[in-house]
Amino acid sequence: MEGKNSSVSFTIMNEVVLPNDTNTFGNLMGGRLMYWMDIAAGIASGKHCNFPSMTASVDNISFKNPIKLGNVVHIEAKVTRAFHTSMEIYLKVWGEDNLHQYRYESNEAYFTFVALDPYNKPRAVPQLIPETEEDKRLFDGALRRRQLRLILSGKMKPDDANELKALFIKEN
Amino acid sequence: MEGKNSSVSFTIMNEVVLPNDTNTFGNLMGGRLMYWMDIAAGIASGKHCNFPSMTASVDNISFKNPIKLGNVVHIEAKVTRAFHTSMEIYLKVWGEDNLHQYRYESNEAYFTFVALDPYNKPRAVPQLIPETEEDKRLFDGALRRRQLRLILSGKMKPDDANELKALFIKEN
Amino acid sequence: MEGKNSSVSFTIMNEVVLPNDTNTFGNLMGGRLMYWMDIAAGIASGKHCNFPSMTASVDNISFKNPIKLGNVVHIEAKVTRAFHTSMEIYLKVWGEDNLHQYRYESNEAYFTFVALDPYNKPRAVPQLIPETEEDKRLFDGALRRRQLRLILSGKMKPDDANELKALFIKEN
Amino acid sequence: MEGKNSSVSFTIMNEVVLPNDTNTFGNLMGGRLMYWMDIAAGIASGKHCNFPSMTASVDNISFKNPIKLGNVVHIEAKVTRAFHTSMEIYLKVWGEDNLHQYRYESNEAYFTFVALDPYNKPRAVPQLIPETEEDKRLFDGALRRRQLRLILSGKMKPDDANELKALFIKEN
Amino acid sequence: MEGKNSSVSFTIMNEVVLPNDTNTFGNLMGGRLMYWMDIAAGIASGKHCNFPSMTASVDNISFKNPIKLGNVVHIEAKVTRAFHTSMEIYLKVWGEDNLHQYRYESNEAYFTFVALDPYNKPRAVPQLIPETEEDKRLFDGALRRRQLRLILSGKMKPDDANELKALFIKEN
Amino acid sequence: MEGKNSSVSFTIMNEVVLPNDTNTFGNLMGGRLMYWMDIAAGIASGKHCNFPSMTASVDNISFKNPIKLGNVVHIEAKVTRAFHTSMEIYLKVWGEDNLHQYRYESNEAYFTFVALDPYNKPRAVPQLIPETEEDKRLFDGALRRRQLRLILSGKMKPDDANELKALFIKEN
Repeated sequence: MEGKNSSVSFTIMNEVVLPNDTNTFGNLMGGRLMYWMDIAAGIASGKHCNFPSMTASVDNISFKNPIKLGNVVHIEAKVTRAFHTSMEIYLKVWGEDNLHQYRYESNEAYFTFVALDPYNKPRAVPQLIPETEEDKRLFDGALRRRQLRLILSGKMKPDDANELKALFIKEN
Repeated sequence: MEGKNSSVSFTIMNEVVLPNDTNTFGNLMGGRLMYWMDIAAGIASGKHCNFPSMTASVDNISFKNPIKLGNVVHIEAKVTRAFHTSMEIYLKVWGEDNLHQYRYESNEAYFTFVALDPYNKPRAVPQLIPETEEDKRLFDGALRRRQLRLILSGKMKPDDANELKALFIKEN
Repeated sequence: MEGKNSSVSFTIMNEVVLPNDTNTFGNLMGGRLMYWMDIAAGIASGKHCNFPSMTASVDNISFKNPIKLGNVVHIEAKVTRAFHTSMEIYLKVWGEDNLHQYRYESNEAYFTFVALDPYNKPRAVPQLIPETEEDKRLFDGALRRRQLRLILSGKMKPDDANELKALFIKEN
Repeated sequence: MEGKNSSVSFTIMNEVVLPNDTNTFGNLMGGRLMYWMDIAAGIASGKHCNFPSMTASVDNISFKNPIKLGNVVHIEAKVTRAFHTSMEIYLKVWGEDNLHQYRYESNEAYFTFVALDPYNKPRAVPQLIPETEEDKRLFDGALRRRQLRLILSGKMKPDDANELKALFIKEN
Repeated sequence: MEGKNSSVSFTIMNEVVLPNDTNTFGNLMGGRLMYWMDIAAGIASGKHCNFPSMTASVDNISFKNPIKLGNVVHIEAKVTRAFHTSMEIYLKVWGEDNLHQYRYESNEAYFTFVALDPYNKPRAVPQLIPETEEDKRLFDGALRRRQLRLILSGKMKPDDANELKALFIKEN
Repeated sequence: MEGKNSSVSFTIMNEVVLPNDTNTFGNLMGGRLMYWMDIAAGIASGKHCNFPSMTASVDNISFKNPIKLGNVVHIEAKVTRAFHTSMEIYLKVWGEDNLHQYRYESNEAYFTFVALDPYNKPRAVPQLIPETEEDKRLFDGALRRRQLRLILSGKMKPDDANELKALFIKEN
C-alpha cells in the first residue's frame, strides 16, 4: 500500500450557528461543535484511507472562545499520521463574525479513527507522508500523543511511554 | 456558599440510536454520542451550581465498543469536584441491547463546565462534598486530571504539575 | 416465560428544552414532549419484554405546567402490567428549573406498547410482577384503564366494562 | 366576539416518513406522529382563535395501522368546539402508499388547545359554528369528551358527568 | 398507461416556522423552504406516477416576502404536465400570520421529477390530463419552460427553442 | 465603499449524506442539498458584504448525478457580482465517493442574496472585483442572468433584455 500525502486528506467545513445549536447564552454548545468536528474528521479519514472508518478516540479539547449565534464555524481537518490500522486527525476550529470582520480561535483537537473491513475488523491503512513543516511537526508529535492516549485509556503503562516523558521536559 | 453533595448532580440519560445517528456500519457516530454526553454533563453541572454554565473542556475519550442502531445509550453523569468557577463532570456511557439482554461499556469521560454570571463572566460555584468511596476517588483524581488539562492547553508548565507526576509512577 | 419485576423496566430520561422545541411563548411544545415520552416508553417496554415493540395507544394526557426554554425535562417510565402481547407503561414528567431550584409536575401518562415477532405479528410477553405499593396500585388500575381504552377505540361495549364502572363510583 | 365556522380552521398536512422517523421495523414511531399531529392541531387552533395557543391535553389515541418508511402521512385537523378559553381539535390521520395506490387509516384523535394573552393567561376564544353533519356530531360529542377529560385529569367527579354517563348506555 | 387528471396529484402541506428554520432576522431561510417544497413536490409526483421518483431540476425561484418565525407556511403542489419519464410540478407558497389574519405570497416554483424503475433507470409515466383553465394554462406553458430548462442546462441549443422565443414576444 | 475581491467570499463546505437526507433510493434528496447550498451561499454573501443578508432568488438548478448515502457533498460558493443591494453567488457541487476514489458533478447554481439594514431594508453592498479568468467570465455573465431572473419574476419585459438576447445567438 502506497503512502499518501498530508494534503490528500485536507478538509474544510463551514457551518452557521443556528438557534438550536446554542445554549441559553446564545453560544454554540460544545456538544454540537464536537458533532461537526467528528463529521469533518471522518471525511478527512475517508480521504486518506478510502475505507469506511469510525471514531476510536478524541484527545483533550479546550474551548477558548464561545462561538455566537449566527456566526460561522470554520473547521479544518487533516490526517497527521497513520499507525497500523488507525489515523490521527488534527482539527483546528475558528469562529467567524462576518459583521464585525472578526475571526477568533475556538479550539484545536486530535481525533483518532480506525479503518474497518466489511466484517468490522480493523484493517491496515496507507502511511502518511508529511509535506510542510507543520505536517512534519504534527507527524512527530503524533507518537507522544499516542502514548498519552494509550496511558489514559489504560492500554500502556506510564513507564513504557518514552516519548511522553518529553512532555515533562519541554512543552507541547 | 454552602458545599453540595455528589448525589445532587447525579443525572441519568437514556436515548435510542436512530438511523440518522449512525455511520455506514449502523453504529452510533462518535460525534452524536459526544453531543448527548455534553447535554448530560450540562444538566449535572446545572444541578450542582444553579447557574448557567458552558463546556470549557473535554478530556481524552476512548470509545471501547460501538453502539448499534436501535440499541439504548445509557449515560450517567455527576460532578466530581468544583474548582473556583469550574466543575469537573464524570460521565460513564453504556450501550444496551435489550433483545440480547446485553449491556456493554462504551466509554468514560471527564467534561469541565464553567459557571457564568449574566455578563458572561465566570462566577464562583459551591464546593463539592464527595459521599461514596467512588466519589472520593474521583474527587482526589480531579487535581491530577486538571494539571494534565492545563498542560495540554498550554496554561501550565509540566514542571509545575506535581500531582500529574504521580501518573508516571502508578497508573490512573 | 418467567415474569419480570417492575424495577427491570424502570427508565429515567433527562433532556434540555432547546429553542427548536419551543412555541412562540418559549415553552416546550406538547408534540415534542410526547416524542420524548414515546422514546422513554419504548425503552421501558424493550427492557421488560426483550423483543422489538411499538406504540399501540396513548391514554389521555393533561399538561399541567408549561416547561420553559433551557429547563430540564425529567421523564420516568416503567411497565405497570403486561397483557398477552401488550404492555402498559406509566410515565411521569417533571420540568426542572435549576436556576431557581424549582421542580414542577408536567404530566402523567399511560402508553401501551405491543411486542412483535420478526414477521410483525404480536407475540406473548412476560407477566409483570409488581413490587412496591405504587406498583401494585398501578397494576390494579391497569385493568380499568384497559377497558376504557377498548371502549374509546370501539373494541369493547361499555356494558361489558365492569371494572370501568368503578370510575363512576370512586375517583382514579 | 363573533363565532367562526368549522371550515375556517380546517388544516391539511402531508409529510413523508423519512428514515429517522422510523423504529427498527421501518414503521413511523408513534412519538414522531404525535409531534406532527400537535403541529397540525396548533395550526388549526391558530386559524380559529387568531391568538397564540398551546397544547392543554390530548385524548386517548389508538394507532390502527403502522405507516411505512417512504409512505405519506396525511393529517386533517379542525376545531370541533370552543369552550371559554379552550378549543377541541379533531384530527384524522391516514397513511398513503402511492406505489400500491393504497390509503389506510392510522388514527383519530382529539387535542385541546388553550389560547393565551401576552401575559400567558388564558383568554376567551370565538365560539365555533358547526356547518356539516359531521361538524354537528363532533360539536355535540365534545361535551361528553370534555367531561371524560376533566374526570381523567382529576378536575371533575364522575358523579357530576351527566353527559359522560351516556357513554355507558350507547357507544361513542 | 392511462392518463391522470391534474387533481390526482394536488397536495397541500402546512408547516410552522420554528426557531431553527430562521436566519438572524427571524425569517424563514430560503434553503429550509426549498427543503419543504421538495418534499411537497415529491408527494405530488408520487401521487401522479405511483413510482418512486426524484428531483431532476428546479426552475428559477424568486422569494417575494419573508415568512416570519411562528407563521404558517402553506404550500400547494400539483403536476402540470408529464413528459416521457419526467413530470413538471407547480408549487405555490404562502405565509400565513394567524394573529394578524394576514396571508401573503412567498413564491411560485416549478420542480421537475423523474420516475425511476427498481434499477434506477428512468421509466415512462402516465400523461397528465389538465382539468381547469389554470391546469390548461400551466400545461401549455410547460413546453416553453422545458425548453428554457434544457437550454440552461446545456442540453438544447437556443436556436431550436421555438416555444421559448415566445417569451421574448409576450410575457410569461 | 471599497470593492472586494472574488476570493474574499470563497467558501468551501463538506457534508456527509446521512440516512435522513436520503429518499427511498438511498440518494440525497434535492431539497436537503438546496438547504446546504443556501447555507453555503449565505456564508459567501456574508463574507462579501459584512451585513446580514437573505436569499432573494435561486436560478434554475439541474441535478446531474445523484449523491449516495455515506458519500461526501462538496460545495464551493463565491460571489460573482454585486448589484446595488444584491449579490449573485455561484455554487458548484460535487459528490465524492471516497471508497471508490470517485468524484462526480452534482450541479451548478446561482443564488441571489440581498443585504439588509437593521430595519430590514435593502442596503448597498461593496462592488465585486473579479480576479481570475473564471471570475471575469462569471462577472460578465451575471448581467444576462439577472435579466433572465427579472423577466422570469415578471419585473422586466423581454423586449428590454438586450443582454439576454445573446442567449439566443450563442450558448451560455
